[in-house]
This record gives sequence, C-alpha cells and structure tokens, in this order.
Amino acid sequence: MTQDGGLDDRQQRAWRSFYRMQEVLRARLEQQLQATSGMSNADYTVLVVLYDAPGQRLRQFELGEVVQWEKSRLHHQLSRMCQRGLVERGPDPRAPRSRARYVTLTPAGRQALLAAAPAHSREVKRLVIDRLTDDELDQLGALSTRILDALDAAKPSDGS
Amino acid sequence: MTQDGGLDDRQQRAWRSFYRMQEVLRARLEQQLQATSGMSNADYTVLVVLYDAPGQRLRQFELGEVVQWEKSRLHHQLSRMCQRGLVERGPDPRAPRSRARYVTLTPAGRQALLAAAPAHSREVKRLVIDRLTDDELDQLGALSTRILDALDAAKPSDGS
Repeated sequence: MTQDGGLDDRQQRAWRSFYRMQEVLRARLEQQLQATSGMSNADYTVLVVLYDAPGQRLRQFELGEVVQWEKSRLHHQLSRMCQRGLVERGPDPRAPRSRARYVTLTPAGRQALLAAAPAHSREVKRLVIDRLTDDELDQLGALSTRILDALDAAKPSDGS
Repeated sequence: MTQDGGLDDRQQRAWRSFYRMQEVLRARLEQQLQATSGMSNADYTVLVVLYDAPGQRLRQFELGEVVQWEKSRLHHQLSRMCQRGLVERGPDPRAPRSRARYVTLTPAGRQALLAAAPAHSREVKRLVIDRLTDDELDQLGALSTRILDALDAAKPSDGS
C-alpha cells in the first residue's frame, strides 16, 4: 500500500518480504506443533525457556523479560498452562515468604516438551535450515542478533 | 535445550537468535499498534492485504491463502473485525448468487488503517530499518524471499 510512510521503495520491499516470511513461517510452525502436540508457539516457547532455566524455574518477572510479552498476555498464557498442568505458579519453595512468584516446569510439562521437540526440530530443519546454505544461515543468525540488539537498545520506555 | 534434535550447534545458534528476534520484534510491534491504534498485528495485516486488493475486496479463500492462516483462525479473526465494523463479509455484490464469500474493507476499516499506518511505519523504521545498513537490509530481504520460496515449496500437504 502507498501508506508505508517513511519507507522508500527498497526499504518497503525488504520489510514486506521480511514481515510476510515471519507470518507464514510462524503459521506453519504452529500448525505442525498443534497437529502433533496440541501446543501453540507460545506454549512451546515457555516450556523451552523454563527447561533451560536453572532448576527449571524462573521468577514470573524474569520469564516475562525473556519472552518480552506484556504482563497480561504472560498472565493469561501461564494461567492456561497451569490449568493444563504444564507449569506451576507459586512462591519460591526455598523462600516461601518472599513475594516473588515463581513459575516451575512440572514433570508433565517436561514430558510434553520432550515429546514435542524432535518433530518440531525436524520441521524447523525441513522448512528453514535445510533450505539455506551455511553462509546464508550464518547471515541469518548475524542479522537476527543485530536486530535483537537494536530492539534492546530501543526499549519502549525510551519513547521517541 | 539439548532436545534440538536434528540441529548441530551452529544451526541451533542461528535458529535460536532468528526465532527469538521474531518473537521480540512481533511483541514490540504489537505493543505499538495496540497502544496507538487498538489493533493487533493480525488486524493490521488483514487491513493491509484488503487495502492492496483490487476493489479492496477478496474472496475469503484468497485472503486465507495470502495470510496463510488456518480456516478457523481466519474465521474468528474476521468475525471480530466484522463486529468492529472494519470489514464486511458477504456475497459478491457483482455476483450475488455465487456461493463464494467475499471480505470487503469498509470505510471505517480504511480510515483505521490510514490512521494507524504512519506511526506503525515510523516504528518499523526506528526498530529495524534505521538499524541496518543498506547491504544488511538487502540481505534480509533476500533471505526472507529465499525462506518464503522454501515454505511455498514445502506445503504441509507434501508430507515428509
């Protein structure tokens, strides 16, 4: 559309393929996750982050920092995952009087992740990794890191 | 996590920054859209696709092909947008007896898009475009096109 305001043609073209690629890839990965494991991308992301955390537990606040979701989105996502028994929310068992809320991967959550991961990795490999040369994959990794750094540097609270 | 099955370390590193970048960027763009226009990424995407279509109207089926959402997701998304008056669903006014359902941008939808677009473009520019050199932007566009082509070539119905 002509309303891409501040972007010139070259920027607009690059942005549009980039944005569309992300939408399509996301939809395709989610289809596979839903079909084989009954999970959304968001479920899978939370399970991976907790799995990698020390003691497979994080403060809810820290989890929010990692996934960068807004408070209410994180809250609703975790409530649904609690109901399904994939994670538990509660005080730190090592400091039960602290007000910090912890989110812990449950045995069922761990099992669900370990069951879902192989097929998900195969799909990632089939859809993306195997389609790029080593150089392209390195470029993709490097560009992603550049954009992530830029996003960190331009936190919403900065205004602008 | 150690369960990234078929991926070697280099692939895993590249995939993880790529995936994380997409999650963070998506969340940040959605925050801005919600805050300034009360829209989700999905709302914005549908409005842009319809705006660009001939007559600002598409068959629901074609819209689904462009955004690559599953039928039920598309249906729910469009129902919400109908309720808010941003789009209309119905038979083709030029062929009212055809069974195809059409989705049409309403004047209110057009107005909402045109009101949202400048701030959204500025945010895209600020968060991504301005942070990359021209060469990096071209690389990003080219890699995105490569991945999109690969996704088209590996349609879910292909199996594998």
